[in-house]
Amino acid sequence: MPASQHQNPKTDIEISQTAKMTPIIEIAKSRLGIAAENLDPYGHYKAKVSMDYIKSLKGKPNGKLILVSAISPTPAGEGKTTTTVGLTDALNHIGKRAMLCVREPSLGPSFGMKGGAAGGGYAQVVPMEDINLHFTGDFHAITSANNLLAAMIDNHIYWGNALNIDQRRVVWRRVLDMNDRALRQIVNSLGGVANGFPREDGFDIAVASEVMAIFCLASDLDDLKKRISNIIVGYTRDRKPVRAGDINAHGAMTALLKDALAPNLVQTLEGTPAFIHGGPFANIAHGCNSVLATSTALKLADYVVTEAGFGADLGGEKFLNIKCRKAGLEPSCVVLVATIRALKMHGGVKK
Amino acid sequence: MPASQHQNPKTDIEISQTAKMTPIIEIAKSRLGIAAENLDPYGHYKAKVSMDYIKSLKGKPNGKLILVSAISPTPAGEGKTTTTVGLTDALNHIGKRAMLCVREPSLGPSFGMKGGAAGGGYAQVVPMEDINLHFTGDFHAITSANNLLAAMIDNHIYWGNALNIDQRRVVWRRVLDMNDRALRQIVNSLGGVANGFPREDGFDIAVASEVMAIFCLASDLDDLKKRISNIIVGYTRDRKPVRAGDINAHGAMTALLKDALAPNLVQTLEGTPAFIHGGPFANIAHGCNSVLATSTALKLADYVVTEAGFGADLGGEKFLNIKCRKAGLEPSCVVLVATIRALKMHGGVKK
Amino acid sequence: MPASQHQNPKTDIEISQTAKMTPIIEIAKSRLGIAAENLDPYGHYKAKVSMDYIKSLKGKPNGKLILVSAISPTPAGEGKTTTTVGLTDALNHIGKRAMLCVREPSLGPSFGMKGGAAGGGYAQVVPMEDINLHFTGDFHAITSANNLLAAMIDNHIYWGNALNIDQRRVVWRRVLDMNDRALRQIVNSLGGVANGFPREDGFDIAVASEVMAIFCLASDLDDLKKRISNIIVGYTRDRKPVRAGDINAHGAMTALLKDALAPNLVQTLEGTPAFIHGGPFANIAHGCNSVLATSTALKLADYVVTEAGFGADLGGEKFLNIKCRKAGLEPSCVVLVATIRALKMHGGVKK
Amino acid sequence: MPASQHQNPKTDIEISQTAKMTPIIEIAKSRLGIAAENLDPYGHYKAKVSMDYIKSLKGKPNGKLILVSAISPTPAGEGKTTTTVGLTDALNHIGKRAMLCVREPSLGPSFGMKGGAAGGGYAQVVPMEDINLHFTGDFHAITSANNLLAAMIDNHIYWGNALNIDQRRVVWRRVLDMNDRALRQIVNSLGGVANGFPREDGFDIAVASEVMAIFCLASDLDDLKKRISNIIVGYTRDRKPVRAGDINAHGAMTALLKDALAPNLVQTLEGTPAFIHGGPFANIAHGCNSVLATSTALKLADYVVTEAGFGADLGGEKFLNIKCRKAGLEPSCVVLVATIRALKMHGGVKK
Ligand SMILES: [Mg+2]
Ligand SMILES: [Mg+2]
Ligand SMILES: [Mg+2]
Ligand SMILES: [Mg+2]
Repeated sequence: MPASQHQNPKTDIEISQTAKMTPIIEIAKSRLGIAAENLDPYGHYKAKVSMDYIKSLKGKPNGKLILVSAISPTPAGEGKTTTTVGLTDALNHIGKRAMLCVREPSLGPSFGMKGGAAGGGYAQVVPMEDINLHFTGDFHAITSANNLLAAMIDNHIYWGNALNIDQRRVVWRRVLDMNDRALRQIVNSLGGVANGFPREDGFDIAVASEVMAIFCLASDLDDLKKRISNIIVGYTRDRKPVRAGDINAHGAMTALLKDALAPNLVQTLEGTPAFIHGGPFANIAHGCNSVLATSTALKLADYVVTEAGFGADLGGEKFLNIKCRKAGLEPSCVVLVATIRALKMHGGVKK
Repeated sequence: MPASQHQNPKTDIEISQTAKMTPIIEIAKSRLGIAAENLDPYGHYKAKVSMDYIKSLKGKPNGKLILVSAISPTPAGEGKTTTTVGLTDALNHIGKRAMLCVREPSLGPSFGMKGGAAGGGYAQVVPMEDINLHFTGDFHAITSANNLLAAMIDNHIYWGNALNIDQRRVVWRRVLDMNDRALRQIVNSLGGVANGFPREDGFDIAVASEVMAIFCLASDLDDLKKRISNIIVGYTRDRKPVRAGDINAHGAMTALLKDALAPNLVQTLEGTPAFIHGGPFANIAHGCNSVLATSTALKLADYVVTEAGFGADLGGEKFLNIKCRKAGLEPSCVVLVATIRALKMHGGVKK
Repeated sequence: MPASQHQNPKTDIEISQTAKMTPIIEIAKSRLGIAAENLDPYGHYKAKVSMDYIKSLKGKPNGKLILVSAISPTPAGEGKTTTTVGLTDALNHIGKRAMLCVREPSLGPSFGMKGGAAGGGYAQVVPMEDINLHFTGDFHAITSANNLLAAMIDNHIYWGNALNIDQRRVVWRRVLDMNDRALRQIVNSLGGVANGFPREDGFDIAVASEVMAIFCLASDLDDLKKRISNIIVGYTRDRKPVRAGDINAHGAMTALLKDALAPNLVQTLEGTPAFIHGGPFANIAHGCNSVLATSTALKLADYVVTEAGFGADLGGEKFLNIKCRKAGLEPSCVVLVATIRALKMHGGVKK
Repeated sequence: MPASQHQNPKTDIEISQTAKMTPIIEIAKSRLGIAAENLDPYGHYKAKVSMDYIKSLKGKPNGKLILVSAISPTPAGEGKTTTTVGLTDALNHIGKRAMLCVREPSLGPSFGMKGGAAGGGYAQVVPMEDINLHFTGDFHAITSANNLLAAMIDNHIYWGNALNIDQRRVVWRRVLDMNDRALRQIVNSLGGVANGFPREDGFDIAVASEVMAIFCLASDLDDLKKRISNIIVGYTRDRKPVRAGDINAHGAMTALLKDALAPNLVQTLEGTPAFIHGGPFANIAHGCNSVLATSTALKLADYVVTEAGFGADLGGEKFLNIKCRKAGLEPSCVVLVATIRALKMHGGVKK
């Protein structure tokens, strides 16, 4: 890195915008051996790996899985993503075939004060702006699937309520990929008979939805459909659970998620391949990228570096006890990011 | 068309799913002379034409514009889209360089009973399922931009309300690309101080939003930004208008719409190039595809066939008096679709 | 009237507060021949005439009924009540046995800008302040009965809804004797399962309630109970009406109204007996005092002067076509109050 | 008591309805030495003692105060009121001049399953039905005063909000003398600009209101007005309290409470005088009858028996530490009601 860069350091976005990216089709071919016809491009620098190709990898041996976790974080974050990116780039530098897997950032906080979730400095995943905006539309698909279910529940109640859903006991909330305090708690179905039965409702952010959690644990489309079908959407007056499958919502929801389920391939500033896929919050779900991305990466690279949200005691535990158990994964190594700042702060030094 | 097809006619979706499509990059090249680097592919059969390339077409002469309108329709529709597709295919058959421009379908009604909006039979635009689901994410972008503005309004009120917006006079509603009766009329911001000031609110469908209308009238990104800035979001207690620009929402909204603004290129079953872009409802807006798509098509083809929603007295009038005037367009020909069925029904024959 | 009064005219309330009133027991005895045991006193200057005594009057001949109506009024009122009081006082002055019957004022507007409804100047009914505040509690009883029914409806729905009331089609609203804009339209039953099924609701003012209208048309307690039982409170999902009697509310409601049903006896400043009883609004109901008060007055006096709210074309018509027909009354004379001010204003002279 | 009564015991209401009552004017005269002109009768068996007369008693010595409290009660109650009535009757039997003071019952629970609050069997206060329904209108007056304040708050906000009340921080709730689950939590001011600023609101039962608590602690009308003026109704955006006096509600509220403040005189089945006045709930307020009633009784009788709601550890403590301290009272004796049933139940015997 030239000395000038240390004297007038560029911002993350300057670095990202001036980056020379390699077409993702070339990255896929040269680094991972994936032919163009097995990719669905989204512009020139993002692509989804086709589900058929993923199935074809089944018999291949797995690479080694490296988890990046951290000390209990401070509000600014300790650098897990940056470490994940840097470590993977470094492994490639020394001649290892390594790739990384991280979560997609939520649009919500992006328009708040926090930076995006694609690393920083020269340890970034690009194209950063795309990744931080709509990316390949996965979160939009998850939002649509979630809200289709919500609409179908209220519609079921409206048209005679054959399942006897108690509208006070509907537990399925709507979502938006947006930090919108006004929607956290609402009363819906107002305006008279034609708008249905009024009830208390609210919106979560998409990354906090059960669809997001399920999406990230699914092993394939059939498994996703089964998981969706099992979602409890509410209860009858005598407290029997009613499921998404009972109102026949699972088919259409799965159709909406079909394309989204394929992992998204991008690259680091140094051309290292990266899967950015799924984004469940660590506080309410397991907080790591999709099982499909991680499993596929292990077939494609010898070393797969991934991270889990929050500190080792929350995201790390969830990674090991939820994602690994469900997906049959076993990390060969855990990297723990610890900073002087966090040690000081947790030790009681004033901010 | 082989005789067997008339005896056992296939459904639209069967026809669509068994269609042999040409890669969109080839269609763009061979039919419209657009090089691959001027396209942003979304998979292999959809692409956006880059805004830089569109700008480069400025000096080129325009082709001829053909409007397809109709008699006052019956609930099933009289066949405007099918005629638009068929006519364009036919023009190509007789050796003319023709393309078509139609609106993107709303996801909302797609999950209701109506078919999608990509034509029917052998006069279809493909890939039909993609077009009817997320397509290239334009409606998601419009939804996000619309709801970001809504969130910023409530946020502005929450953080001191420097502009003195009267929360009873906020006229900006939220949207979803979903038919959801439960959200038509709501009360938001419930749940205590931290969730803001309660007010009456509601969701429209995305195709009925002002952002959609603006989006379809914008000539480029700067124009879009200016139009967004002028949106009236509410009024003060003394009834002065407050605009999106006053709360500084136009920049972020435009960023969210940046990719969506480029026209989407697909093909008919016969390989005729088609722009499907924008989708404002005819009952509340001008009801035809984006000015950008139509203007660009006129630079790329000798004949551009387009349609306007509803009958001649609504969509046709709006096309001629709003879109054409705003965009400086002038149709050379109007095709009027009329059916025996509609004539009978409007004449009083029983359904 | 001494000359000094014309030079420094007193306000209505000064006149009222300095009035020398005769104990109501004496008025009842000397003017109407009612013994003390047939009265229920409320303080020394208000009393209810017992229902048993009223029944005992049945065979007696009726006096003559005089209706005071008016030209279409201006916002300040043209003086119907003042004329009613003055005319009745005057009839007594010339030796006729006359009494008057008017409506009870609503507490609501009393705390707004309008004066009370007990006349003005030296043509007042007293004790004015009592009459304008709680009086003998009739409106409180009507409010309680109305709201008990409302509570029983929601309670019925809560406890299994055996009658299948559609909560979107509950038409029974709550009431308060208060002008409270915040309660005109509400959403109730929020806060979770234990608070019932949320629905759109609202409060009217007590004088605009159906209970008030029924109360004023009832001929006795049994008739009141029957009328209450017939109240439609809402509809089932298939639009069958549900009545107060169906949820067994009529008994308790009637119990709450038992005391209120007896007419209230007070006096004018000149000691003329006056019934002030019931107060339905003329815009939504028949707009005149109770049938029971008028019918009883006709047994007690030779001339009974009464008024009907608003002008001759509204209140006058309703009096003649609703109250008189229902109660078998026939006025012998109609006095029409017309003012130069109203003639001017209706003729277009500027305020 | 004749033997037949033990064999076919009458219900409370039968006993009450067949009771021979002495006119309250005679009770007041013969038992308490109060002349008829110092009473405001409400019918023949209820009366309010005039405030002027109460003031005239100031120099007289106090009788002895006896508190009836109880073991922690079971749902059915242990018999405090019955003991209070029986003990007072008994004191009179042995020639002492004793009277009792208890709370007015809420209409709300009366229409639920619990019996009224006027004792039971032959230890009842009468007229029981009147006492359990509207009685002398005190609770209606308290309800009106409470809700007038609520309406004035929303009206203040509506008309420019000069005091900058934060509508999310209005803490003053409305009340009804009714158990109405549907009103516990509502959203009000819906329906557009003219109905004000929507906010979360709700109704308590009248006996749980601050007006009720204040009413029962007031020493006279001026003190009541001052206490009302000090009520905190909400907070500004910067969390400064806003009081009833700030919106000038205290005058009108006090006017509505003027008559109610005078203690209500009734009698036991044995003709013992009883004050039944005020009714604050013990769980949220001090839970005993009005200071004015108790203080007045101590001037009128040698022994005054009173009770405090709930058990000794709640109502008893509140009586001693709130009411007695505030009013300068000191009980000479405490009677503790304990039952085998309660001992068993608290000891763990099954119901
Ligand atoms: Mg990170
Ligand atoms: Mg069409
Ligand atoms: Mg009048
Ligand atoms: Mg008791």
